[in-house]
Amino acid sequence: MERTLARDLPQHIGERVRLLGWVHHIRQLGKISFVLLRDRSGVTQAVTGEPERFGLDRIERESIVELVGRVKPEPQARQGCELELESIRVLVAPVAPLPFEVSRSKKKLNLKLDMILDHRAFALRNPEIGAVFRVQAEIVRTFQEFLRREGFLEVHTSKIIAAGTEGGTALFPIQYFEQKAYLAQSPQFYKQMLVGAGYERVFEVGFVYRAEDHATSRHINEYLSLDYEMGFIDSFLDVTRLEERLLKELVKNLGENCAEELKLLEARLPEISSIPYLHFRDALEVLRRDYNRDVSKMHDLDPEAERQLCDYAQKVHNSEFIFITHYPRRTRPFYTLWDPDDPEYTFGFDLLFRGLEVTTGSQRIHDYNLLVENIRRFGLNPESFEFYLEIFKYAVPPHGGLAIGAERLTQQFLGLANVREASLFPRDRFRLTP
Amino acid sequence: MERTLARDLPQHIGERVRLLGWVHHIRQLGKISFVLLRDRSGVTQAVTGEPERFGLDRIERESIVELVGRVKPEPQARQGCELELESIRVLVAPVAPLPFEVSRSKKKLNLKLDMILDHRAFALRNPEIGAVFRVQAEIVRTFQEFLRREGFLEVHTSKIIAAGTEGGTALFPIQYFEQKAYLAQSPQFYKQMLVGAGYERVFEVGFVYRAEDHATSRHINEYLSLDYEMGFIDSFLDVTRLEERLLKELVKNLGENCAEELKLLEARLPEISSIPYLHFRDALEVLRRDYNRDVSKMHDLDPEAERQLCDYAQKVHNSEFIFITHYPRRTRPFYTLWDPDDPEYTFGFDLLFRGLEVTTGSQRIHDYNLLVENIRRFGLNPESFEFYLEIFKYAVPPHGGLAIGAERLTQQFLGLANVREASLFPRDRFRLTP
Repeated sequence: MERTLARDLPQHIGERVRLLGWVHHIRQLGKISFVLLRDRSGVTQAVTGEPERFGLDRIERESIVELVGRVKPEPQARQGCELELESIRVLVAPVAPLPFEVSRSKKKLNLKLDMILDHRAFALRNPEIGAVFRVQAEIVRTFQEFLRREGFLEVHTSKIIAAGTEGGTALFPIQYFEQKAYLAQSPQFYKQMLVGAGYERVFEVGFVYRAEDHATSRHINEYLSLDYEMGFIDSFLDVTRLEERLLKELVKNLGENCAEELKLLEARLPEISSIPYLHFRDALEVLRRDYNRDVSKMHDLDPEAERQLCDYAQKVHNSEFIFITHYPRRTRPFYTLWDPDDPEYTFGFDLLFRGLEVTTGSQRIHDYNLLVENIRRFGLNPESFEFYLEIFKYAVPPHGGLAIGAERLTQQFLGLANVREASLFPRDRFRLTP
Repeated sequence: MERTLARDLPQHIGERVRLLGWVHHIRQLGKISFVLLRDRSGVTQAVTGEPERFGLDRIERESIVELVGRVKPEPQARQGCELELESIRVLVAPVAPLPFEVSRSKKKLNLKLDMILDHRAFALRNPEIGAVFRVQAEIVRTFQEFLRREGFLEVHTSKIIAAGTEGGTALFPIQYFEQKAYLAQSPQFYKQMLVGAGYERVFEVGFVYRAEDHATSRHINEYLSLDYEMGFIDSFLDVTRLEERLLKELVKNLGENCAEELKLLEARLPEISSIPYLHFRDALEVLRRDYNRDVSKMHDLDPEAERQLCDYAQKVHNSEFIFITHYPRRTRPFYTLWDPDDPEYTFGFDLLFRGLEVTTGSQRIHDYNLLVENIRRFGLNPESFEFYLEIFKYAVPPHGGLAIGAERLTQQFLGLANVREASLFPRDRFRLTP
């Protein structure tokens, strides 16, 4: 008999079906016993009045079982139907006591994050914890399919590099045969080179690495970067406007394709009408005026400032997103183009969402001589960047791009307290396993 | 005026349009001058009888230009139309002599591979060289979209690991803060764990790393692995049959969406009716009988054997693909399940395509005790694999999966001599840049 998925039970009322999955829970209600079965599609319920006949008291939770029975309507069941049990067969049984009960709600489980991460694969059996990565997969899918429709080519660029994109700080060293190499901090150089290679528009979904010493709720050392880079732009606004359209499609897709996951996680989707823009200089003025911050030495935004500016965007623009633009030149990498009318400030921007930076981008320098000059101005040696610089000798169009942190975006959409909850197997200052 | 792409010129006959791109070539034919313009969509042609008026002799190849003019039908032009030049404006000009002429055919260019790879971004401007990665993107897209439709979840698993999947050989060491870590050889452990986590069916597109000393035309040290893993299988045939369907869809999609690239590269798509299967033992017999090979000490297939078995598949089954199944136990990793009726042989298989292994897969051991026992039998310590083993204590269904090397598959579809040609920025024994 073909397998039926838990989710599809309502389509088989009156039929005999076969289910495969894990025993989520077994409970007794008066004379009736319920077996809750969990598979990749969700949880469904089988019932019987003869628990002894099926030896239900000897079946351990999280056993993998095959259930056969007839589907009958049952208005009180969550799906409007349930399986009248005819047989249950244990295919694989656990060989050790479970670390915790995955069938309880996350709130009732009340586990420390380390406990969840130490038992990551098992913890994912909890429907709420597992739902996070179904949402993340939809974010990634939307990113890819939206950009393909916009004429972007998906690329995969090396993560083993000879020099850092920002000049050698915060890199993880690798022994690459006889040579010293590093893990890439971003695909920045490569995506720019590929614009110059003639692809014009490229995107990449890939891990990047930052050997930063942080141990905060917003940092991990290996994260999934959603990058795009586009040539022949008129200004950085071409980059941000594309992101706005992408985010609108994302909200629509999450609503349509992840409704169950969002409900389970009590997550609320943002409404996006038009994302406001705020010049960095004006952002400081808002922080000073409305939030009493001393901004005299502020050249970048700290986490508190990000939260305050999102609060401001909510109040004044009724928006959960805000683009902060024109970051000061001293805080942005050497490849960032500056505003010729106001050269203290760059065409670099961040996108803040519910109090957290989720995107960094800019228009880049495309002129070879200017780029070399700026590398020098940063105290770096253009020779170390020869592999990157070469293509600029042969004409690269005006271009810009951005990078979205997939885990942070997932975290903010789902209201998760810690970015690690949005990473399947997070790597941080102290965590190398599982 | 909006930008028109080179490819779309025929849709604008009679209209005035604006094009942006690189000067691919400028040539004089009697009194007429032609400017070939290349953008991300292809190459198109502008004509004028007044080259002096536009200063065409002062415009360097590979300059980025804006062309404006009216589109007129021209039966002799490749697109059936061309642009009557009204203005040309140089936006960005090269500042150094070009390393080679990208407008010539690859054959005429006759460049050494190292020359191409040393100037990788520039070389991609050559339409043939650049086409390779449009085909590869279509391979990746098909892989993702096909598997999503089959109920697989896209996952992204850490590439920084504490132990190797095959027991610690051929790993690149990383200094991870105070700890020693390694680059992942494959997402093998993680994808199995995620089957056991309850996702049942997962896929991943990501780089993996092999610190192997090879310097051959078929090896690179960082390659893009297209992985899937599926639970609740009846046998490894569920895994191979899914791959057969995937490959059929791939051939169809490449034919529909990459026709120009395939033509440019003179690539021929394979026809897949039904991929033949050959037991390893029988494969040896074929090699002995038909190819005069001494197979007495053959426990794995060498490159020559792979070519010979593909030759056999072509002759006997009229197939360019062949599954070699039941590889001997001693050549497969510890997680590979063996045939209980013939325990010298495993349920592990390879897929050969035009003489090259492009896929490795198997049914895996899902029983915790058996897995621990087999780790010991391989002389390894189960304790080092605790992070992987844990989920097997809590019931993992019968499962299997495979990994496809994206570069090798691209190479074979396109008939490229070296796998490096199918890697944007290849990493090999001696190459760390660009």
